Amino acid sequence: MMQEDIKMAFKEILQEETSKIDAVIREFFEEYLKSETISCETQGLENEKFNFIAQFYSDLKDYLSFGGKRLRPISLVMMYKGLKGSSNEIYKVAISVELLHNASLIHDDIIDHDTIRRGQPSFHAFYADWFEKNLKFTDQNDFGLAMGILGGNLLIDLGQEAILKSNFNLNEKIKAVSYYLKAFKELIDGVVFESYLQSLPLDRVSENDYLTMISGKTAALFQKSLLIGALMVDKTEKYKKEISNFGMLLGQAFQIRDDILGTFGDPKETGKSTESDIREGKKTLLTIYGNENSLIQELYGKKDLTKTEIQSVKRILKEMGALERAKEKALNLSEGAKDVLTKIKLNEESMNFFMELVQFVQERIV
Amino acid sequence: MMQEDIKMAFKEILQEETSKIDAVIREFFEEYLKSETISCETQGLENEKFNFIAQFYSDLKDYLSFGGKRLRPISLVMMYKGLKGSSNEIYKVAISVELLHNASLIHDDIIDHDTIRRGQPSFHAFYADWFEKNLKFTDQNDFGLAMGILGGNLLIDLGQEAILKSNFNLNEKIKAVSYYLKAFKELIDGVVFESYLQSLPLDRVSENDYLTMISGKTAALFQKSLLIGALMVDKTEKYKKEISNFGMLLGQAFQIRDDILGTFGDPKETGKSTESDIREGKKTLLTIYGNENSLIQELYGKKDLTKTEIQSVKRILKEMGALERAKEKALNLSEGAKDVLTKIKLNEESMNFFMELVQFVQERIV
Repeated sequence: MMQEDIKMAFKEILQEETSKIDAVIREFFEEYLKSETISCETQGLENEKFNFIAQFYSDLKDYLSFGGKRLRPISLVMMYKGLKGSSNEIYKVAISVELLHNASLIHDDIIDHDTIRRGQPSFHAFYADWFEKNLKFTDQNDFGLAMGILGGNLLIDLGQEAILKSNFNLNEKIKAVSYYLKAFKELIDGVVFESYLQSLPLDRVSENDYLTMISGKTAALFQKSLLIGALMVDKTEKYKKEISNFGMLLGQAFQIRDDILGTFGDPKETGKSTESDIREGKKTLLTIYGNENSLIQELYGKKDLTKTEIQSVKRILKEMGALERAKEKALNLSEGAKDVLTKIKLNEESMNFFMELVQFVQERIV
Repeated sequence: MMQEDIKMAFKEILQEETSKIDAVIREFFEEYLKSETISCETQGLENEKFNFIAQFYSDLKDYLSFGGKRLRPISLVMMYKGLKGSSNEIYKVAISVELLHNASLIHDDIIDHDTIRRGQPSFHAFYADWFEKNLKFTDQNDFGLAMGILGGNLLIDLGQEAILKSNFNLNEKIKAVSYYLKAFKELIDGVVFESYLQSLPLDRVSENDYLTMISGKTAALFQKSLLIGALMVDKTEKYKKEISNFGMLLGQAFQIRDDILGTFGDPKETGKSTESDIREGKKTLLTIYGNENSLIQELYGKKDLTKTEIQSVKRILKEMGALERAKEKALNLSEGAKDVLTKIKLNEESMNFFMELVQFVQERIV
């Protein structure tokens, strides 16, 4: 295939697989809504019958439907297909990693006090608002917080249910659950470490600390998604090492680019403010590299920065080469990912897909 | 055996099994601390090496060691033994339900803004304090909240790891994990429902709503603990229905008595304030029954009640018979539990143990 055709195929796969994943997620929730065992229909506020649990599940379903690139489940599916897996059951397994990813988004938004996600209210913000509108009978605080913690928890649970409900062999299912749990644990370790680093003075955080942190926070779930996809078609896990490395390098490159977009992206494209990382003093490669500059040291992490001061921080990060260095680091990791990818015997479609995925991570603006 | 001897045996079993469970929990964490893969040693604040993740795991271990009656894992073990199970591997499985239980305590304490648990700081309160003392370099809010969410999540994960690491057959392990996930899901449903009921006016909550809520919040995990214990020795799950019923009835009775202790217990024994349920307007059987009284309607759930007003609420709940009715409901459920228990063919030791456990739930003051 010509390079242009490969790019086109990549986009088509993304689109096609996204709509398949979305459909399976919808079905999964609808099945749950039907089989809801806890009979918690109450006398509603207007004396109609009302089932809050059913609404809760339905709101989670909606939250999942607000988008996201589905890169993790799609990677899982493409690894499976690339190794000649052919059962449609893989989609049931694939949604597990998307559910876990969304669980972590819900919890992260609580931790980071983020009220917007994908241009919509974050899950806890949605429920804080719902409480205000519907349940003003008590002065209960933090209904949104409670629903956020519990909503994330429910997705953690359902992700595993998704694997267990599929028709693969017991052996593969339990290995897939183990990878899921491993990803979850590394994700937690990563966010715990991030919270800790976040609390340190900027000059105490090294490039190495950052890479360790993002390998848990971001790369682990990419890596395990790929490993699960491979496992479901190849019990021997012949390419375990190569796939692990590929997932790790890809995931790290992804997070570095994500952090760059967090400061230098277009808010209209990313749906995220490019000021909050600077105000919150988030530890990213940009700022670790930028820390040599005294003005960065002084301004970074101040909650009350003016727009002009934020512009200064951005300008300095560019002028002193911190932005360039961070891009270069992401590029190096991406090149490493491509190298190791060639060692995995994938069919042409999946090989092209993953090569383009690495390229996409490098070039992405959303 | 004479009744006195049975009571004595019950206490001895509780003591002995508690120390076994405690030891296995300790070992489990120590193994994790050794095998910690994420290499997150940082340059410490005083330039010494510091591994925050290792501290985090260690703090979770300490949190688990602060006590708790271990009723869930002990019930799991006694069901297993009662059906003639004899492998010590059962302890590795048994700690899973204690880890999940503690995960839910950590998250519940965040949701309920409780800063004390078992006479110690609750997990998030501990870390909020730790942050104040050690990490005052940034004005990051809610470090405690972040650690609480993540600490609970880690225990959810580790509980399942505990099952998967045991040496039982794959088949039983995956069924045990399924029960674990089911308990977790029902627990979430229960707490979601509780948060919703909590936000309704008192006169909108029925006895039935309450029973539905506690069957998820409390009874589900008792029930699944017993079912897991049985499953590990009897693949056919011959007594599944009886064990389910027993666990459900026991768990509901337990929660009703727990709520009674929450208002009428001795704070020195229970370690809990007997005022907060009244101030928070917690929906319990006591108050659902007490709602006929206009003063209860007026005072219940007011944050700024005086000591005298709280005493009035308690006095009225007694005088109008709400306390008596709640006790009676718990007693009825307990009697039902005993009835169904006799249908399960257990060895004498376990049969006596569970009969005494029901009795203990009825009479407990802590």
